[in-house]
Amino acid sequence: MPVFLDSTAADFEAAFDALLTAKREDSPDVDDTVAAIIADVRARGDAAVIELTEKFDRLSLTPETLAFSPDEIEAECARVPAAERDALEQAAERIRAYHVRQRPEDARWTDPDGVTLGWRWTPVSAAGLYVPGGLASYPSSVLMNAIPAQVAGVERLVICAPTPEGKSNPLVLLAAKLSGVDTVYRIGGAQAIAALAHGTETIRPVDKITGPGNAFVAAAKRRVFGKVGIDMIAGPSEILVIADRDNDPDWVAVDLLSQAEHDESAQSILITDDAAFGQSVAAAVEKRLQTLERRVIAGASWRDFGAIITVRDLDEAAELSNRIAPEHLELCVADADALAARITHAGAIFLGQWTPEAIGDYVGGPNHVLPTARSARFSSGLSVLDFLKRTTLARMTPGALRAIGPAAETLARSESLEAHGLSVRLRLDKLNEG
Amino acid sequence: MPVFLDSTAADFEAAFDALLTAKREDSPDVDDTVAAIIADVRARGDAAVIELTEKFDRLSLTPETLAFSPDEIEAECARVPAAERDALEQAAERIRAYHVRQRPEDARWTDPDGVTLGWRWTPVSAAGLYVPGGLASYPSSVLMNAIPAQVAGVERLVICAPTPEGKSNPLVLLAAKLSGVDTVYRIGGAQAIAALAHGTETIRPVDKITGPGNAFVAAAKRRVFGKVGIDMIAGPSEILVIADRDNDPDWVAVDLLSQAEHDESAQSILITDDAAFGQSVAAAVEKRLQTLERRVIAGASWRDFGAIITVRDLDEAAELSNRIAPEHLELCVADADALAARITHAGAIFLGQWTPEAIGDYVGGPNHVLPTARSARFSSGLSVLDFLKRTTLARMTPGALRAIGPAAETLARSESLEAHGLSVRLRLDKLNEG
Repeated sequence: MPVFLDSTAADFEAAFDALLTAKREDSPDVDDTVAAIIADVRARGDAAVIELTEKFDRLSLTPETLAFSPDEIEAECARVPAAERDALEQAAERIRAYHVRQRPEDARWTDPDGVTLGWRWTPVSAAGLYVPGGLASYPSSVLMNAIPAQVAGVERLVICAPTPEGKSNPLVLLAAKLSGVDTVYRIGGAQAIAALAHGTETIRPVDKITGPGNAFVAAAKRRVFGKVGIDMIAGPSEILVIADRDNDPDWVAVDLLSQAEHDESAQSILITDDAAFGQSVAAAVEKRLQTLERRVIAGASWRDFGAIITVRDLDEAAELSNRIAPEHLELCVADADALAARITHAGAIFLGQWTPEAIGDYVGGPNHVLPTARSARFSSGLSVLDFLKRTTLARMTPGALRAIGPAAETLARSESLEAHGLSVRLRLDKLNEG
Repeated sequence: MPVFLDSTAADFEAAFDALLTAKREDSPDVDDTVAAIIADVRARGDAAVIELTEKFDRLSLTPETLAFSPDEIEAECARVPAAERDALEQAAERIRAYHVRQRPEDARWTDPDGVTLGWRWTPVSAAGLYVPGGLASYPSSVLMNAIPAQVAGVERLVICAPTPEGKSNPLVLLAAKLSGVDTVYRIGGAQAIAALAHGTETIRPVDKITGPGNAFVAAAKRRVFGKVGIDMIAGPSEILVIADRDNDPDWVAVDLLSQAEHDESAQSILITDDAAFGQSVAAAVEKRLQTLERRVIAGASWRDFGAIITVRDLDEAAELSNRIAPEHLELCVADADALAARITHAGAIFLGQWTPEAIGDYVGGPNHVLPTARSARFSSGLSVLDFLKRTTLARMTPGALRAIGPAAETLARSESLEAHGLSVRLRLDKLNEG
């Protein structure tokens, strides 16, 4: 059973705090193993990657077969049924249309002191996307990671996707093709992250690594951060649904289960202003859990981390939501826009009962890589900006230097940085000579 | 002596690679110490912070004196001489004017499928800025960290600035006041970062921590990353000057020294298309090093990490610059704009010989917190965006669900996520009933 909370109960604050701080993930400490793998790949390059792939994925590769060949990719893509191909193309098109709007503008202006200022955005040169193997090998994640990079103008886009025992997912390769990926390596784990960050004889290093992965991948990303950029260390997924009584309990139940089925550590929370509606949703969830394909996973998640919270009114719902800072937030209420205006921290908001969160996972357009574990308090979902960086620009004229140089010199002296001050003073002296 | 390289030499590539990969910083491994400090602050709160401050800063505090009182701040600010106050105010005003332009726009539109999409930016609720004590206690850094937060609309802005033996820097307090800081705590080190991230009885936790610091502070920031957002782990500063022969060698020399004087690990590089000019700059640097206040630090940096590179032409200069991806890039050439257009990776560009980098450190307007150690390949300087996060928005209508729902359902099934598919299917079935 999930936890039932009532905001009018005397012990509510304590129970809600417990919900907020519950540790949902108990990652194994793989840091030493990962450090050794990274050192090995740095020292021995391809040979290390090939040995580790043999060991962990039971797959024999050579430097020549580390990547899929163009023919192999074509053959794999041809295996994708028409309906799935069409769906993937529609998704890719919609995701691209959304992300194109995120391209930021360059700027340049001259201010009243005569200083020309501005900034310019440029793409990262090369990006590597990690795509997990096995159960969590999601073609939708390929689109969500690769399309923003492509839209940003990244020149070289590569994927690492392990194929345990040589089993590959044709949809992953089709998604890669649809989103402009240049090369797909059939390697995974910490060795793939090490190869992307440091390069090998065959694998050229990249500047930025994104994409989800297991504990080994996460630890490797944390370690190579600084040498390359990374997106975020994603935690288990979560959804918060705020719903009033004018909803079908079964719709809300499957929306909650669509997070729960991802992972036993996922979390699904309902906040409602109607206790009876909350009970109906709980019943609908139990019923669906009898037949759902992934009922073992979804059931564990719902039992261990699910919650139904009854509140006095929607104002209180917004306030609690902001404390949760959910990754996904569904607002199934009459005036979803009014409620959304009160939300200050959330990765993605789904407005109204016709907008199930699953739309956002695939075809809505916005990115499905979103901040988990309350990190929506300070971070955003993946976007085109993650594959761009900004260079600031400044140009002084002699007149501008006269206007603002003396202040720079004064501050440099106050910080005991003489050369800083001199670099301004020498130029001012030259002007005074003239 | 710095290293002299010539791009036409046979061993140039090897020598340039050595320059790129030289390890400039040998941070002590303080991770275990930092882990223990963080655990102590989490367990004992104020008591731990007070004990550690006594130990490391030789300063006795109580919960009541952890923060400067408003009266103390007023008294400290009154000690600042008028010239420095004016300079700081001019700097604050110019930095604010630049950063105001970085505020991003919200967006909302309805696409041809009838889906309403968009995004909304909201500020981080609370930010903590770390200001190092002692030598590197720079009021300019307070402005550069606090003003973007203030412009972003951060509600609560606090500073941790250690005051070893009780010695405080009145300019730091004035800079804090000018940039809307609410509270200044006189604590530092890993204990300050732990208190900002986890909170104590007296210190409320924040959502984002920015600002430079020593190895303990850097290790603590890396550890609390995820619990809170952090800006970056800053490395030693660096400058690259690209200059033709039509420059005063002494100006270029002091520009190079203005990085070298920061830190023995700082790096200053000149690229020129005129070998004789390079020699003149080298001579000018040596001359300045005889009298410069911080000649010991600047001399060590120049000797160990300085470089003068002669190239065939400015095209080659741009190409090498992009491989270096410098934090600061001065373009002292006739057509600086044309050269800037060829630069793909740099934190900040200073255009023309009237724009010494020191202007950017204080009063230019752009931020001086910039990506070091080649990270301009994938990251940007501090900006208003670092204190904002984006929530994506989506609203489906029944018509929109008919248009794109089936593709979502198909992809959900292909990923074996039944509840995802059901959340779309139940709604489509309802429409088909109607």
